[in-house]
Amino acid sequence: MYLQRLAIAPAQIQNNSVIFTPEQYHYLYRVLRLQTGDRFIIMDGLGKSWLTQLQENSAQILESIDTQTELPRAVTLILALPKNGFDEVVRACTELGVSRILPVMSDRTLLNPSSQKLIRWRRIAQEAAEQSERQVVPTILDPVDLTKALSTTDAKIKYICVARGNNPHLLTRLQSERLEDIALAIGSEGGWTIQEVETAIDYGFQPVSLGNRILRAITAPITAMSLIAASIELINGNA
Amino acid sequence: MYLQRLAIAPAQIQNNSVIFTPEQYHYLYRVLRLQTGDRFIIMDGLGKSWLTQLQENSAQILESIDTQTELPRAVTLILALPKNGFDEVVRACTELGVSRILPVMSDRTLLNPSSQKLIRWRRIAQEAAEQSERQVVPTILDPVDLTKALSTTDAKIKYICVARGNNPHLLTRLQSERLEDIALAIGSEGGWTIQEVETAIDYGFQPVSLGNRILRAITAPITAMSLIAASIELINGNA
Repeated sequence: MYLQRLAIAPAQIQNNSVIFTPEQYHYLYRVLRLQTGDRFIIMDGLGKSWLTQLQENSAQILESIDTQTELPRAVTLILALPKNGFDEVVRACTELGVSRILPVMSDRTLLNPSSQKLIRWRRIAQEAAEQSERQVVPTILDPVDLTKALSTTDAKIKYICVARGNNPHLLTRLQSERLEDIALAIGSEGGWTIQEVETAIDYGFQPVSLGNRILRAITAPITAMSLIAASIELINGNA
Repeated sequence: MYLQRLAIAPAQIQNNSVIFTPEQYHYLYRVLRLQTGDRFIIMDGLGKSWLTQLQENSAQILESIDTQTELPRAVTLILALPKNGFDEVVRACTELGVSRILPVMSDRTLLNPSSQKLIRWRRIAQEAAEQSERQVVPTILDPVDLTKALSTTDAKIKYICVARGNNPHLLTRLQSERLEDIALAIGSEGGWTIQEVETAIDYGFQPVSLGNRILRAITAPITAMSLIAASIELINGNA
């Protein structure tokens, strides 16, 4: 049986009960159309989920759930902000299992997103985590300059996607490494400048290709995340 | 140097000149802002491209271009029409190299798209082929019933994506086959019925998974096409 899902903050759980915000009540009763006595799943966004039963003013925790749909390695996407379509990137990459999205300002991306945008992206990540049946809500980090992002990323394996040129395909690289935590940087419309790619290489990022065709700034992260998620799921033989 | 691209019909080429429609003139002069004497690329949508120079009332073909960005195997996507977002599926899958998209009506997809919708999807496929620098414009076929689509698909390798269950991952299957032409079927919201999956298996479709998380009807075809395109590009060592 399919059960609805709701992400809550860990502090909302007290003595085996869940205390909801007014917005969450509205969502449960009006949007999901649940009734007192109905069962649904709550997730704390940090990896834990519970089967719960809706009461008049709270929900009773019945049992913890140990399904595991998270990728066994952390994946950080470092994304130069495209002019449009970042909502869709956040949504699809969350479904595909991304751990963290770090928006960056690059030479060809001038816009510094408003705090409203960040709130919006975090809400989309939460909704997409619920709908795709994840246990963890990915973190949308505050935007930083590209150089700061490149210099502070501590993933074991680091890639930068370059649209033209003769770099090995991302899938080739993924198949030739022992997969650890991965960070991958993708540019916006117009791609990276040569200087940006060189800086990334200096910080240990390997340049990779996503294929012979030119992908839009919306498609490229979804494609990269598809290849990374599939490759990571295959290493554990859990796919 | 980056050159603009325009898809034309093969019959528009006569004696090394290209005769444009009024809409194409408008596009070249007003949208792309080209001027007489400017060079750009025309593609006949069937695999041939030429460097051309804009004249007052036509364009002169200067030389044929033999860049090759097409996948070396044909890929057919059989897609149950989602309620929303099919524009984005057509656009992204075109960028990723799809050969043919066959929209199907399934048990959980009732809507029969209008001819306006088909015209729109074909225009999107043409624009996306131009922008992603493909030589071929993928064919958007007229919608048919799922059973007809399953029974008439003649690709050597056939997959059907199933959202839950214990099927091997698409990438596992792609890595274990000698890759020939591929057809892949993906459901809409709610997925396929059990009967539909069984019918597909009867027609030689292998059930596959796209991972442990639940993908939306928009994300699933883009993810599948990302995995197929990368796997096909790798077989020829041209990636």
